[in-house]
Amino acid sequence: MKKLLLASTSTLFGERYLEYILQDVALFFKDVDTVTFIPFARPGGISHDDYTEIAAKAFAKIDKKVIGLHTYKNHKEGIDQAQAFFCGGGNTFVLVQQLYSQNAMQHLKERITNGTPYMGTSAGSNIAGITMKTTNDMPIVYPPSFDTMHLVNFNINAHYLDPDPNSKHNGETRETRLKEFHAYNNTPVVGLREGSFLLVTANTIELKGKHTARIFEVNKTPYESKTIDF
Amino acid sequence: MKKLLLASTSTLFGERYLEYILQDVALFFKDVDTVTFIPFARPGGISHDDYTEIAAKAFAKIDKKVIGLHTYKNHKEGIDQAQAFFCGGGNTFVLVQQLYSQNAMQHLKERITNGTPYMGTSAGSNIAGITMKTTNDMPIVYPPSFDTMHLVNFNINAHYLDPDPNSKHNGETRETRLKEFHAYNNTPVVGLREGSFLLVTANTIELKGKHTARIFEVNKTPYESKTIDF
Repeated sequence: MKKLLLASTSTLFGERYLEYILQDVALFFKDVDTVTFIPFARPGGISHDDYTEIAAKAFAKIDKKVIGLHTYKNHKEGIDQAQAFFCGGGNTFVLVQQLYSQNAMQHLKERITNGTPYMGTSAGSNIAGITMKTTNDMPIVYPPSFDTMHLVNFNINAHYLDPDPNSKHNGETRETRLKEFHAYNNTPVVGLREGSFLLVTANTIELKGKHTARIFEVNKTPYESKTIDF
Repeated sequence: MKKLLLASTSTLFGERYLEYILQDVALFFKDVDTVTFIPFARPGGISHDDYTEIAAKAFAKIDKKVIGLHTYKNHKEGIDQAQAFFCGGGNTFVLVQQLYSQNAMQHLKERITNGTPYMGTSAGSNIAGITMKTTNDMPIVYPPSFDTMHLVNFNINAHYLDPDPNSKHNGETRETRLKEFHAYNNTPVVGLREGSFLLVTANTIELKGKHTARIFEVNKTPYESKTIDF
């Protein structure tokens, strides 16, 4: 039975890494004592070791050990040995390129589909969707495909941000970008605001946190929702 | 002799399409009476015809006729017949995918390198750089490559936006994204604020508009500059 925790962000403004969600994370991972961390998105280009250390510090507070997937030369071996996964945020293009390099995307998908718990934040949540085509990240590397794990039947837009009514800047709003997405794709998109996360078990999806989600479907006006029904 | 006008945006807040730059555009295109418009980036998914109509209206004010490149079934033919080019903004991924579909990127590059004037705004300016890896756009389609025309020896970041000191949102700032870019790439990046544009002739590059540009180079602190020396 699939078990996913997909969060919009790792960190709320002014808080520590995972602080806002730590009790939910403890509950989610209650049956494991070690979590395999996927550091490949490495935000700001920090090293895999440094990024894993950040995750390990947060998980130590809930008495979980963290192992970096990058410490296995053979990623499949690391994936096969994992009790549970946490994939951190950063750049989705970098993450996806790396996950394709040793066919890790497919191995990861198989283990998660078979019931190994998977938690993602930001880029780590994006890759649970059908494609990475609704990432906000800059395309700093060229991955072999934009297809991701398809663990849920929709795409996620992390760090979803409402349009700023006072903006005098002509860069597109998030809503405009997602409208453009639907000029070329039919996949529904769940816009997850910071502080929101999805708990997915088998066929139920719970939206947690204080915000509603903004839902984008092809040929429909975007709308707010407390439930995810795809 | 190469002749380029590369603008950050087509439209300043509260103004009409190309209004802020129209006299410079008239001067840039003074030797031609017809401009071939490349509508492929089609912002918000509008049709190629509608987008061309928007460009045609603005160019009518400076007595230039506009032909949409999409009206040629064979894009090479349209490119061969053009007196000058204007490539509008929208989604860079869509634009690049379309330009690769009939090898138009290569044909376009050849004609521009041989002296046919080229003007771009936003996505249209991005493709004058070495790669599209510093676009702000959402990857809504998967192009066969991120390589672009390499008409200048750097990448452009259009709609460059300074960090908002009051933001409580954890999505990356533009500066963070460009720092990540340099964890994987050596290409210098010119951050062009809205209202700024580059005039390129042979080997001289002039920065026009009232803003300085923000320059990002690998292993250097980003800095402001009134000149572009790459």
